[in-house]
Amino acid sequence: MQAMAELAFEDFKGGQVFELGTVSIDEDEMIAFARRFDPQPFHLDAEAAAGNPLLGGLCASGWFTASLWMRGWAEQVLNRSTALGSPGGNSLSWPAPVFAGDVLAARAGILGARLSRSKPGLGLVDVLATMHRAEDCVYRAQFTAFFGTRNSP
Amino acid sequence: MQAMAELAFEDFKGGQVFELGTVSIDEDEMIAFARRFDPQPFHLDAEAAAGNPLLGGLCASGWFTASLWMRGWAEQVLNRSTALGSPGGNSLSWPAPVFAGDVLAARAGILGARLSRSKPGLGLVDVLATMHRAEDCVYRAQFTAFFGTRNSP
Repeated sequence: MQAMAELAFEDFKGGQVFELGTVSIDEDEMIAFARRFDPQPFHLDAEAAAGNPLLGGLCASGWFTASLWMRGWAEQVLNRSTALGSPGGNSLSWPAPVFAGDVLAARAGILGARLSRSKPGLGLVDVLATMHRAEDCVYRAQFTAFFGTRNSP
Repeated sequence: MQAMAELAFEDFKGGQVFELGTVSIDEDEMIAFARRFDPQPFHLDAEAAAGNPLLGGLCASGWFTASLWMRGWAEQVLNRSTALGSPGGNSLSWPAPVFAGDVLAARAGILGARLSRSKPGLGLVDVLATMHRAEDCVYRAQFTAFFGTRNSP
């Protein structure tokens, strides 16, 4: 697959922006995710959520929002590239709660790209992940992604 | 619920460690999660994964590992506390791949705690999340959690 990939390390440059499309937050899936992975009352039940002074209502687990961004990134970019995984990142924030019915626009901004010093054929790309509901940012993360170079084996 | 919570902001102090139990990685769930949220070949298919020089086999989406940690934290700590959500964190890493059948020990270390300067009754607790497979760390994240103070309304 890598030999045919449309995007290799060399194709990522600081300043690029990839629009990853929009995602609608489905209430049933949002609650099912929380029941399995983040069973706090304000992610499961509207009445319990009403008592949370910060969130203002039944809202999505931040990990659901992060996972939905990941899907867009995988489908729109990684799966037509030489992507090799990610070692992690250095910021992760949920500046505002996400509610059922929200329509979120997902975006990946390329912050920079550099070759690995230790592994030939490997490049590191720094990415700013965001999800917006209209003008409001509801998810922001900065992380690194590994890509093979164009001619790596 | 908050009035009866066993753990309030005042109960969290730097140096504490909460053992959150162990999690076994179920192959079917691992792949189902990837199919929905992180459909990269090395998370879906053993043959495709064999071609990835960094990961060494079919492995879990890092967001699945992060979400499994969250479940332990919610069940073991947050749901007996005055937890009010999280604004995010400042590091997230997956130092080694996670494979089906792995048994991971989840832990939360408390790094520090401080009162909000702007919101009375609100405290911020800095947490180090980790998952280990035997001696190997496979997930590490540092983030902030909001808790109500003992006598907050």
